[in-house]
Amino acid sequence: MINKLCNKITNLNAPIVVGLDPMLDYVPEHVKKAAFEEYGETLEGAAEAIWQFNKAIVDATHDLIPAVKPQIAMYEQFGVPGMVAFKKTVDYCKEKDLVVIGDIKRGDIGSTSKAYAVGHVGRVQVGSKSYAGFDEDFVTVNPYLGSDGIQPFIDVCKENNKGIFVLVKTSNPSSGEFQDQLVDGKPLYELVGKKVAEWGDAFMGDSYSYVGCVVGATYPEMGKTLRKVMPKTFILVPGYGAQGGKAEDLVPYFNADGLGAIINSSRGIIAAYKQEKYSKFGAENFADASRQAVIDMREDINGALGK
Amino acid sequence: MINKLCNKITNLNAPIVVGLDPMLDYVPEHVKKAAFEEYGETLEGAAEAIWQFNKAIVDATHDLIPAVKPQIAMYEQFGVPGMVAFKKTVDYCKEKDLVVIGDIKRGDIGSTSKAYAVGHVGRVQVGSKSYAGFDEDFVTVNPYLGSDGIQPFIDVCKENNKGIFVLVKTSNPSSGEFQDQLVDGKPLYELVGKKVAEWGDAFMGDSYSYVGCVVGATYPEMGKTLRKVMPKTFILVPGYGAQGGKAEDLVPYFNADGLGAIINSSRGIIAAYKQEKYSKFGAENFADASRQAVIDMREDINGALGK
Repeated sequence: MINKLCNKITNLNAPIVVGLDPMLDYVPEHVKKAAFEEYGETLEGAAEAIWQFNKAIVDATHDLIPAVKPQIAMYEQFGVPGMVAFKKTVDYCKEKDLVVIGDIKRGDIGSTSKAYAVGHVGRVQVGSKSYAGFDEDFVTVNPYLGSDGIQPFIDVCKENNKGIFVLVKTSNPSSGEFQDQLVDGKPLYELVGKKVAEWGDAFMGDSYSYVGCVVGATYPEMGKTLRKVMPKTFILVPGYGAQGGKAEDLVPYFNADGLGAIINSSRGIIAAYKQEKYSKFGAENFADASRQAVIDMREDINGALGK
Repeated sequence: MINKLCNKITNLNAPIVVGLDPMLDYVPEHVKKAAFEEYGETLEGAAEAIWQFNKAIVDATHDLIPAVKPQIAMYEQFGVPGMVAFKKTVDYCKEKDLVVIGDIKRGDIGSTSKAYAVGHVGRVQVGSKSYAGFDEDFVTVNPYLGSDGIQPFIDVCKENNKGIFVLVKTSNPSSGEFQDQLVDGKPLYELVGKKVAEWGDAFMGDSYSYVGCVVGATYPEMGKTLRKVMPKTFILVPGYGAQGGKAEDLVPYFNADGLGAIINSSRGIIAAYKQEKYSKFGAENFADASRQAVIDMREDINGALGK
């Protein structure tokens, strides 16, 4: 799956991933209205609205992008109907041949991490049959519990040709509170990064490992260091655009082969129609605004990379 | 809700919580058979089996225990039908007036943590209406992202009289890999513990804070230190029994008032019928075995506490 991701990025010349984080506030009124008319102002109505919103954006952008990253929290907030919308979104994106990165940030003790892994990137045994519960291609994983919490994900991924991105340095303002603390003179995130490289060495694709990491675009100096600590690790980079990360900051996240990083934008793409820049599209054509925003993002990043 | 938890523990003389982590392997054959006859060997069949298993255990133990802790991964592994079983379990336990601690270990950047909080311990707005998605009383939260990732949970809990337990020192063998690293001469878990105490000071119940923490029973020396670092923090203690934690090790997790800690047992209670000690009950009477295991656990812990 990491090879597929690399190939798609190269073929499309687009090291970008669209974050499908459908806050209800991002969904245009006419989409909400149609959903609420059918299901009422209910959890089912909200789930239908975000699903229709996602579907339109995926239809408008899938030929330009290698991957999507649905943030499960935005679905989970709507309870079980939200989880149905998450599953529908994953399935639809896979039908469109997109690589699906489930942004789930799970992590627990061994047996429990295994259950998460089985549910999201593996198959669960039920009597004599087995099923894929959510069936993403990659998931994000939290490392706070150490190797025990990560290894079950790796084991399950090996069986299913899938991968993970481990949180190393997150994009949020307070990420340094624990992640930047010095351990033997080096920040904790570097220690986590070294572990990620170690875990990854044992599970390689052609050029990159199935074990990737997350490093926020908002900390480019740290990104530069971490790129060296983890040369074969694909970096999933949140924080571009709405969170403040700029294209020129992203250059050090890439390797000399032009690969090694994939930049996420969520709000900047899916709610593009709300920006002044794309206001000419209007709310009715929100998906076309998203398509234009993808084209602009690709150009912005490739420009900075000199491609 | 923290006051309710304290009162129930005092009234029942039982500082214990039953972990509803229904691995399919724990479910007796006759329960699985009935579920599969109705729904086939499907995700729905598995979900029905774990729900019926839970229901029987809750029916047999609810008058003895203050709280339950369903581990969401064990449900999530069965996809959407598993999430339906999770929700049914939460609702049923609340009907029985049990305090429900959702063991979800979520944590993300601010806006995303807010969505998790809203979905699990708050209410989500849908047009002019609002709904509780999963509606636990407490949830466990991962601190790796720092204050940004925790504060939204606290804000949502304040509005809804609910609480959280923040992972400080987890019970698994490799928890020390990052959590024990020395920062300014003290382990990281102590720094996290201090932050938990700080967050908690601003959100107090009568004697304890709505912001609790998780410290594994498998590290009693650390538990002793952390009890002092966080005097008003309720400690949720996993790792007793099957993971190796002993009752006498748990004494330092409690305060002089006999409160301040709640000990979890999952497998030791819900799969009691599989132990030699409870084999006389047989698989048919698995829930009676669980009841006896609760009585024995209460005695074991109260004995160590000299109560």
